[in-house]
This record gives sequence, C-alpha cells and structure tokens, in this order.
Amino acid sequence: MSAMIDRERFARIALSFVAEPGDLTLGGMLRTSSPAEVFAAVCDGHPPEGAGESERWAARLGRVPTDSRLADWERTGLRLLCPGDPEWPTQLDVLGDIRPLVLWVQGSADLRFACLRSVSVVGARAATGYGQHVATEMAAALAERGWAVISGGAYGIDSCAHRGALGADGVTVAVLASGLSYGYPKGHHELFAAIAGQGVMVSEWPPGRAPTRPGFLVRNRVIAALSCGTVVVEAALRSGALSTARHARDLCRPLMAVPGPVTSDLSAGCHEIIREWGAVCVTEARDVIEVVSPSGDGLGPRRRGPACPRDSLDPVTRAVLEAVPARTGSGPAAVAVTAGVDLNTAIGCLGALAAAGFVERCVRGWRLRKDA
Amino acid sequence: MSAMIDRERFARIALSFVAEPGDLTLGGMLRTSSPAEVFAAVCDGHPPEGAGESERWAARLGRVPTDSRLADWERTGLRLLCPGDPEWPTQLDVLGDIRPLVLWVQGSADLRFACLRSVSVVGARAATGYGQHVATEMAAALAERGWAVISGGAYGIDSCAHRGALGADGVTVAVLASGLSYGYPKGHHELFAAIAGQGVMVSEWPPGRAPTRPGFLVRNRVIAALSCGTVVVEAALRSGALSTARHARDLCRPLMAVPGPVTSDLSAGCHEIIREWGAVCVTEARDVIEVVSPSGDGLGPRRRGPACPRDSLDPVTRAVLEAVPARTGSGPAAVAVTAGVDLNTAIGCLGALAAAGFVERCVRGWRLRKDA
Repeated sequence: MSAMIDRERFARIALSFVAEPGDLTLGGMLRTSSPAEVFAAVCDGHPPEGAGESERWAARLGRVPTDSRLADWERTGLRLLCPGDPEWPTQLDVLGDIRPLVLWVQGSADLRFACLRSVSVVGARAATGYGQHVATEMAAALAERGWAVISGGAYGIDSCAHRGALGADGVTVAVLASGLSYGYPKGHHELFAAIAGQGVMVSEWPPGRAPTRPGFLVRNRVIAALSCGTVVVEAALRSGALSTARHARDLCRPLMAVPGPVTSDLSAGCHEIIREWGAVCVTEARDVIEVVSPSGDGLGPRRRGPACPRDSLDPVTRAVLEAVPARTGSGPAAVAVTAGVDLNTAIGCLGALAAAGFVERCVRGWRLRKDA
Repeated sequence: MSAMIDRERFARIALSFVAEPGDLTLGGMLRTSSPAEVFAAVCDGHPPEGAGESERWAARLGRVPTDSRLADWERTGLRLLCPGDPEWPTQLDVLGDIRPLVLWVQGSADLRFACLRSVSVVGARAATGYGQHVATEMAAALAERGWAVISGGAYGIDSCAHRGALGADGVTVAVLASGLSYGYPKGHHELFAAIAGQGVMVSEWPPGRAPTRPGFLVRNRVIAALSCGTVVVEAALRSGALSTARHARDLCRPLMAVPGPVTSDLSAGCHEIIREWGAVCVTEARDVIEVVSPSGDGLGPRRRGPACPRDSLDPVTRAVLEAVPARTGSGPAAVAVTAGVDLNTAIGCLGALAAAGFVERCVRGWRLRKDA
C-alpha cells in the first residue's frame, strides 16, 4: 500500500473517531476534499468554509487512536473496513454524503458477500408473541434458501430475526448503534457472540463507544442500504421501528411489511406503510424472495451446474477453486494459504466463483457446490 | 303507463321466470331485441339465432305467473323493479349483458338511494372470532357515518356486517341468491325480517325459488356492482368469498381487504388480493371511506348548511321539502301524500334534496338536516 493511500486511510479513520456517523457537514466536505485534507484542516484549526462542527471535532482529537491501539483491536478479531477494501459493501455508496466513513466488523462471514444476497428484517422491541413467531419463522426460511438476514441486534423482532437465521445455520448480520466491544444491549452478549461465530457484527462507531438515542436512527440507514430489501414485521404507528422502512423507501429499495390483526397496535405501522407507502404485503419468506429477487432466485429447484466450464477460468481463479474443500468448508484465509494467493485475491476469486455457480457459502466458510 | 311499456315490462318479468340470472345468451339477445320480441320468439318456438338455451326456457313457460299472482306477491310487501323504475339502481347498468332482468326487493328503505352511498362488506361463512369482530365494528362505524352496508345475508362475515349496521341504526342491504320468500339460509329468518324493517332485502330470483350452487357466484356480481366499493374481511385462498372481490376488480370498483394474522388461513385470501390485485389494505371504517369517497365525505365535521338557498328550489321540490318532518322522519309515500305529488316525484325530489344538503335519511325515512 502506498504512503499516500496509508495517509488517506489514517485520516478517514481519525475522522471517524472525532465526528458522528451520518454527519452531513463532513459528508459534504468529503465530496470536494480528501479525508487527509479535511483532517489536516481540523488539526490546524482552519476548517473549510461552512464547517461550524469542526470546533467540536477539534475538541475530540484526543480520541484518535494510535496505530498500536488499532492493532490491539484488530488482534481481538475486529476488522476495520474503509471504502475500497475488498470486504467493503459497495451498496452503501448509494447513501452519498451520509455513507459511513468506516465500518468495524467482527465475525466469520465476509460482510460484502453476505449482503449481496440479504434481506433486512426489523421491527418493534416490544414485539408481541405473534410478531416474534413470524420474525423467527421468516428469518429461518430466508436463511434456508441462502439469504442472509440483517437486523439491528435489538430486543424483540430484531433478536428473533437473528435467532431464526442462526437456528437454520444461516448467515446473519447485526448492525449495532454502539461500538462492537460495547455491544448494546448488554443482555445480548451471547447472541452477539453467536452472530460473530456464524455471521457478522457491524458498527460505524469506534469499538468502545456507548450508544446515543439519535445514533439508533442514524444506524438504520445502514440496515436499509446494506440489504436487497427491508421487511417490517411489527411496528406501532409513527414509531422508531419505521425509520428503517423510511430509509428503504427513500433509497428506492424494495420495502415490505407483514400484516397482522387490525386490533393490534403493533401491526398498525405495518398496515400504514402498506396502504400509504406502497410497501408490499408479505406473509412468508417466499413472498419476500419474489420481491427482492424477481427472477425467482432461491424459489425453484437449484440451477444445475456452474454457468461456465472450469477450463475457462484463469489460472489464479482455478487455483483458488482447487483450494476450496468439497464438504466441510474453509474460511477465505485458509483458502488463500492453500491456493498460494493473498487474502484479497482469494476473497475476490471466491465471489466470482460463487456467482458462476462453482462454490457456495456454508457455516464454516466456502465449499464446492454439490452440483458443480 | 302505455300498453307498449306494459307489454315490454310483462315480457321482461316473464323472461326472469324462465331464464337464470346472469344468462349471457339472453343478455346478448336483449342487446338487439326487445324483451317482448325475445319472449314472443321463445313462446313461438322460433328463438333468434344462436339461442341454444331457448328450449330450456320454453320448457319453463309454465312458471310465468299470472298478473294476479304478481299482485299477490306485491301485497305481501315485495316490490318488483325493472330498469327504468325510480327505485332501480342504475349503477347496475355497468354489468352490461349480465345486468339483472328484474329485482325483487322488500323493506323500508329505497334501494336506489341506499346504494348511492354504500359499501359491500363480505367474507367467509366459516369466519373466525377476529373476522366477526372486525366485520361488526366496521359495518357499525360505516352506518354511523351514513353509509349503507351491502352483503349477501350468509352466515359468518355477511351476517356480522348486516348486524353491525342494524345495531348502529343504519341501512343495510341483503342481496340473496334465493327468492325472497324462500329466504336462504333459513336460520336467518329473523335477521332478514330485521333487515327488511330497517333496510332492503334484494333478489334477482322469483320469490319462492330455492338457491343453487352456481347462483351464489352469479349473485356476487350484484353485490359488487351495487356499492361504491367492496371490502373483504376474511377469505381463504381461492375461496368463493373472493368472487365478489373479483367482480369489483373487473368492474374497476374500489376493492379493499382487511389484513389479519399471517398465521390465519382465513386472512390468506385478503393478503393475496392486497399483494396481487392491488386491493387497498383497510383497518377501519375511516380507511374505507377515504377510498370510496376521496373527498372525505363523512370523515370530517359535517358541511354546515345546504349547497344552495331554499328559494332557488323549483315549486314541486320546495313542496316536497316542506312535507319532510324535522325530527321523526317520514317514508317517501307519506311525504308524497303531504306534498300532493306522486310517489316517483317525491322519491326523485328527496334524492335531489339530500344531495343538496337539505334532508337526510334516518331509520324512519327522511327528515330535515339539523344544519339546513
């Protein structure tokens, strides 16, 4: 990596420690200036025009960690992603000025690939037994069909969505509004460990940061932007649970809602967005997949065989394919070592091989597809 | 009434005794020939081209009643309506070739005026407690806001819709698939008497006719065509309860459905028509009125005062207005006698006066509006 790229990356990370995620002022500045230019201006006390926030940023410069502190975090299993990194989910670029500066992730799955085929399942914390049942069943059925389930790690519908996917040996992604080491809510300590073991934990906030009330709403844009579509399982009228739905709508991503008894206040928000926002009325995973994947991906019998012959692969990709085990599954790092390529190359090739139908994700990483 | 009109009317009535309602062959013949011409051809055994049905009609000629038999029925309170009669609901004309030949009606309300401001509320016979509750509440709230509730008189959702409207002192219309004297289902004998007392009973079939299985589906087109919109409260997938919804959709009338638990088979049909047919998801009467009356009629505070000054009314209409009592309400016949006009004139003037905001319907007929 060149010194210049290192400098820009360091500046971006430093800015993520002094500014809050979703800061529109900072996002606007980064449209015309590089992270290093903005960070230098903050350090010098000469912020670009119109940056009234920068005094507050300057006051927080002490929060910027040293390289060794960053290395300590990475040794605990945290990965710090910046735009351009192989695991960076490029679908977040649709957020424009409010795109996350960085993402902290932790877990066995690759965030970018998990989200390429994912659905956000969200809803009220104070869910009813009905909503909990529906969220769990729907997430399990999505996971069984190979869709990752994204949610916010909260009590109620969110936790049912994560647990449903985990129970079906699927991949699930929790996007927190606190730092990953802080792990809010604390009562989900074990759930978060299970998600990291089988999926990915994600946060825009530095590892130890406690959540703030506005942070939850800011976080919701990431849940909406990461996935191919958002399902609201239960939500009261004008509740915070609808904020993810609003982001999905504003991003023109497919928006769905599960109906419920009209006598239940916790279904009133779902009925409202079906009626007023045009959310699709979905009752089971099959309906959801029809919406996010109109070609019927995951609905019918699996396509038999890969899309192109093995011989047509370039030598590096073929080396990666030969390093993928038939049954048990290997992580990208193990595949990279076996194939004799670096990690980023391995991840890139695995994505291409999955798209072409040669390999598939499993709980332990990647394996050959049986029909390949 | 001229002899020619009498002859056409008699022929139409006679045809209604020999052919089944909704007969497309007969409907097509009546596009180019008058009822008298068609009936004469059936009697002579020389039916117009393509009328394979007419042998069956000829075999039933013995069913055509005498004038005195018709008069007997009318003495029991039945009214026999033909297109062109003042009480004939002209919105049925949208049915084209399958428009009813005649309608038998019984009850205190005027069918045409009741249906000008009406909603059909229909659903499964084997309704759940949830569906029964929602249908009853919705019908009562519609009736309270001055909307007539139309349904099919069946067990389950239909009976709850009728009872909800009756309980709120509203007008309700039952469209039966049997003759009105037959009154199917028999277990609703008392309900039908209550509906006749406060609303209208309607049938296309001659009074004593028993229902047939296809007759229920044929009847449903009338329920859809009579009202300003149709609400399905509960329906299983691909059930007969969706046939009224299909007619409403095909007639481009507003179609609505009440959501319910996705775990309930009896809500599955509602969810399907919301998702696949674009039925509006409605949860209460307010939602329904917003759909059938986008100007918000019946939603906000009542319009204060009539639309035009009393002085601008023509002398006959003013005479009818002066015959309308302030509080208790009078039927159209009593108003006609007091005003010194015939019944049809009174009914026509009352409709115009209601539209202009001078009078309103009440349980006992018509009364002055308090704010007029």
